[in-house]
Amino acid sequence: MSECNINETSNFRVLSTQGKARTGILTTRRGSIATPVFMPVGTKASVKGVSSEDLRDEVQASIILANTYHLNIRPGEEIIHNLGGLHKFMNWPYPILTDSGGFQVFSLSKLNKITDDGVKFRSHLDGDECFFSPEKSMEIQMALGADIIMAFDVCPPYPCSDKEMQRAMKLTHDWVVRCKKAMTAKNSQLFGIIQGGLDTKLRLQSLEKVCAEDLPGYALGGFSVGEPMELMYKVLDEVACQMPDNKPRYLMGVGSPKDLIQSIDKGIDMFDCVYPSRNARNATLFTQKGKINIKRAEFKQDEKALDQTCDCITCKNYTRAYLRHLYLQKEPLFVRLATIHNLRFYSNLMKKSRIAIEEGYWKKFKEECLAFF
Amino acid sequence: MSECNINETSNFRVLSTQGKARTGILTTRRGSIATPVFMPVGTKASVKGVSSEDLRDEVQASIILANTYHLNIRPGEEIIHNLGGLHKFMNWPYPILTDSGGFQVFSLSKLNKITDDGVKFRSHLDGDECFFSPEKSMEIQMALGADIIMAFDVCPPYPCSDKEMQRAMKLTHDWVVRCKKAMTAKNSQLFGIIQGGLDTKLRLQSLEKVCAEDLPGYALGGFSVGEPMELMYKVLDEVACQMPDNKPRYLMGVGSPKDLIQSIDKGIDMFDCVYPSRNARNATLFTQKGKINIKRAEFKQDEKALDQTCDCITCKNYTRAYLRHLYLQKEPLFVRLATIHNLRFYSNLMKKSRIAIEEGYWKKFKEECLAFF
Repeated sequence: MSECNINETSNFRVLSTQGKARTGILTTRRGSIATPVFMPVGTKASVKGVSSEDLRDEVQASIILANTYHLNIRPGEEIIHNLGGLHKFMNWPYPILTDSGGFQVFSLSKLNKITDDGVKFRSHLDGDECFFSPEKSMEIQMALGADIIMAFDVCPPYPCSDKEMQRAMKLTHDWVVRCKKAMTAKNSQLFGIIQGGLDTKLRLQSLEKVCAEDLPGYALGGFSVGEPMELMYKVLDEVACQMPDNKPRYLMGVGSPKDLIQSIDKGIDMFDCVYPSRNARNATLFTQKGKINIKRAEFKQDEKALDQTCDCITCKNYTRAYLRHLYLQKEPLFVRLATIHNLRFYSNLMKKSRIAIEEGYWKKFKEECLAFF
Repeated sequence: MSECNINETSNFRVLSTQGKARTGILTTRRGSIATPVFMPVGTKASVKGVSSEDLRDEVQASIILANTYHLNIRPGEEIIHNLGGLHKFMNWPYPILTDSGGFQVFSLSKLNKITDDGVKFRSHLDGDECFFSPEKSMEIQMALGADIIMAFDVCPPYPCSDKEMQRAMKLTHDWVVRCKKAMTAKNSQLFGIIQGGLDTKLRLQSLEKVCAEDLPGYALGGFSVGEPMELMYKVLDEVACQMPDNKPRYLMGVGSPKDLIQSIDKGIDMFDCVYPSRNARNATLFTQKGKINIKRAEFKQDEKALDQTCDCITCKNYTRAYLRHLYLQKEPLFVRLATIHNLRFYSNLMKKSRIAIEEGYWKKFKEECLAFF
């Protein structure tokens, strides 16, 4: 993309490519991140059921995501700021990306009213009237102390009218300019968000507008909002590779192991999703040979580790029979053990993908994965 | 007690005494236990919210308790036995004591009918008809592979009629003889249970009967069932010291920090209770200066560790403000962090008690503790 200058002191470097798939290093003030990377979701300053030590040692996460909308409502960014910022609050000294609150304002809150200035809405928690604007979103994310800050965008529902889509894109493009101006935290990186739904032409238009701001990274928003995933893959295939080569490409809110593999194949570098952690809590656990539902009777006396190729604390120390017992008895330990494993599975999937790309057998690896997911 | 022979190869040795308080070493096939000791309660083969690694490394527990009644119902002792026993099932290679199911049969189940042979009852879970006898309780506990096995007793409610108490004692005394006969696991230890309510004379009668069986340890059952604790302290003061000197003395289902200190003072060596773990889940946390309710507004911006003198993972890594946030947001991480701390507090309380007794300042230590609890 000629609109996006190659920056000599870039925050991102591509290390290797195979087809459209690529590996890279994303540098932040709190450490470097090997890509492709999956970011566990710590909505309210906690990845449900696991501690920050678990995230570092057991999940082996290099970056996590937290949520501007939720943290603004509870406990409030001022409190977190006064306590030394989000990293200190949750004892996670490594990179944190915060989303802008845009997605939650549209999906969770009530009575939202969009003007050119911003969005008026009522908190899903207590009905309090709130107002988010690009400036307000930047202010909250800076107060939290995020390393990667997301632009405040308008995420249209699926399906939506042409008019709705046009308005969402227009506001998203106007607002990214305001975000850039308002994001004054020197050591944080602002990522722009591209909208445009499932229309490749609109996506490329949005891409051109957003990338004209020459930001440290770009995201695709508005996917995984209910559309058939095959349609997303198709658009991704035409759009991801048009995003600047020298900047990280982040696909927001995606997804399943299959989605990740398919998206890496199209040139995506970064992911976040509640999919592995939410599935863990519902007894769906990932193994090298596909997912299993641990509550099934077949695991009643199964002495094997959940995944015999995994060395997370869950697989090293506990049997499928014990995990099934914990789940059926609603023992709180289940959430931790299951979440650690599923998130470690995702970390491992990303690590194996990086190695496959670097060592030249990505296509074979991809096919092997897709046979099970 | 002349009825109880001093055994040359005893499982228990008193190391030091101060007044009636004492320290000792209880030896089991899976390791030695310094007493006084508190046993965290792992009702259904899991101490709620914490892993076996947490119990070893963070709680620093030397022995835990599991529940015959619950494990018989789910998943069933045959399954656990087939999987290599309870220790392997929950990955806890250290000592386990199982209670006999007696207490739960009377407190949880429905429609129980007591005969000389045993107790017929309906499971609290699905109403299935079950039957526990002394022999059945031994069979289950042996199948689980417990290191310390409790005799099957009748635990009368508080208050109860003289007739009820007499019958409970009679059955308890008859059944301990049958338990001794049925408990054929060579490397496990059978502890007898003394009943008798709040009547010192009855307690001493029961003590004489049960201790006549010359067992490796004795417990006081039927306390902490709703009576004023001061009444328990009074009976304990007259009864605990009459229990065999050379055998461990276990006070079942007790209690608060105050209860533990008062009971150690009267000569008790072993405790179990859900009090610290249940309180943790309800936001009541223990510190050197008494208990605090972490949900209170005063902790909103409190950057201090929960207890500045504690080095558990919770106190080392997280602030009161973060714990409060996790609790209010119903984050599952709260249960683990809170439980680890409260159980570690109990471990530390027992350790400090042992040191105080050994080094001769027990009375001073006791008074200091009681000032806060």
